[in-house]
Amino acid sequence: METVKISKKLLNRLPIYLAHLKSLPANSNVSATSMAKALDLGEVQVRKDLAKVSEAGRRRTGRIRERLMQDIEDYLDFASETGTVIVGAGKLGQALLDYDGFEESGLNVMAGFDLEPCTEYSETGKPIYPMNRLEHFCRHYDVHIGVITVPAENAQRVCDTLIACGITAIWNFAPVHLKVPDYVIVQSENLAVSLTALRAQMKNQKSAC
Amino acid sequence: METVKISKKLLNRLPIYLAHLKSLPANSNVSATSMAKALDLGEVQVRKDLAKVSEAGRRRTGRIRERLMQDIEDYLDFASETGTVIVGAGKLGQALLDYDGFEESGLNVMAGFDLEPCTEYSETGKPIYPMNRLEHFCRHYDVHIGVITVPAENAQRVCDTLIACGITAIWNFAPVHLKVPDYVIVQSENLAVSLTALRAQMKNQKSAC
Repeated sequence: METVKISKKLLNRLPIYLAHLKSLPANSNVSATSMAKALDLGEVQVRKDLAKVSEAGRRRTGRIRERLMQDIEDYLDFASETGTVIVGAGKLGQALLDYDGFEESGLNVMAGFDLEPCTEYSETGKPIYPMNRLEHFCRHYDVHIGVITVPAENAQRVCDTLIACGITAIWNFAPVHLKVPDYVIVQSENLAVSLTALRAQMKNQKSAC
Repeated sequence: METVKISKKLLNRLPIYLAHLKSLPANSNVSATSMAKALDLGEVQVRKDLAKVSEAGRRRTGRIRERLMQDIEDYLDFASETGTVIVGAGKLGQALLDYDGFEESGLNVMAGFDLEPCTEYSETGKPIYPMNRLEHFCRHYDVHIGVITVPAENAQRVCDTLIACGITAIWNFAPVHLKVPDYVIVQSENLAVSLTALRAQMKNQKSAC
């Protein structure tokens, strides 16, 4: 249990390192120090994390960007694609369907689903299907990640449907706490919570000045 | 310095408590135990947090939902509105502009801005202005929060412009690390990083089974 918990935090930080490395010029020499500074993270933490996933250049001489990226991608198992579907093809759902950052990260957002699709394809040509095709699609393409962008009142029902279709990881944008079996992972993005927290931090910063 | 850091974590949790309380029936009796369970958080943590922000019913008898919500809202200073603008009125920007969860949380997302707006109003009637009106708008309405939903290559420039307009808190959806002065708070939502982390956790869970 404890091991999984530690891994979870590491697994949350690795994609941040990867995104940072991608933003650097090719063949840059990177170090835990430079990465920690650029990302506002603790240097010891970054050093430990990198040592866990990469054999290359553990000394202070630093690492070559490409080698480190490859090691992180291997650790995150980028090669084996995992299909993702989005349920709720409103504005947010379609924005995510067409978001170009996913493909760069080896993420395969395959299709959108909606109770009443108002279009057959998104702007970039991703298909948007009616809900009754969800189960067949998920089984056929071995989809394991579901993104929920429906209104709050429908989210739990959509979540249950996704799980019945074989989904084991859910990215939830509806502002509700979803009930799921133990083997299903839920990551919630409550946009109002995020913005409220940012505002509270800003006010706190001001009063501390 | 340390005090601010502790507050930051608390300030990030309070909106989560608030969102949960809002989802419960009116006049429910809530306790740290029930909230911790519903939100998958540690009970001691929740108990400490609530004690910090609310005088009401610190004993095991629990608290009335309405009173606790009021205390959290007071602590987060909900009464004093903080204007928010969104720069980048593409699909994601417009989805955020029309997101109905913000208003419920007392968040005032006032307008969108874009280099070349393709419409004057969002679906719900929020105005979308050209960029050259940004500074006047921010000064006039005393706006302090800016949301960045432009492509990565334009994000730093937009960030600099927002800061020049008096913005002190930035919610960044572009997949880049923004450089800002010390007094500016940045909260980044890198969507590809979030989905990559979810996928990695799912694979990790599977291999642990």
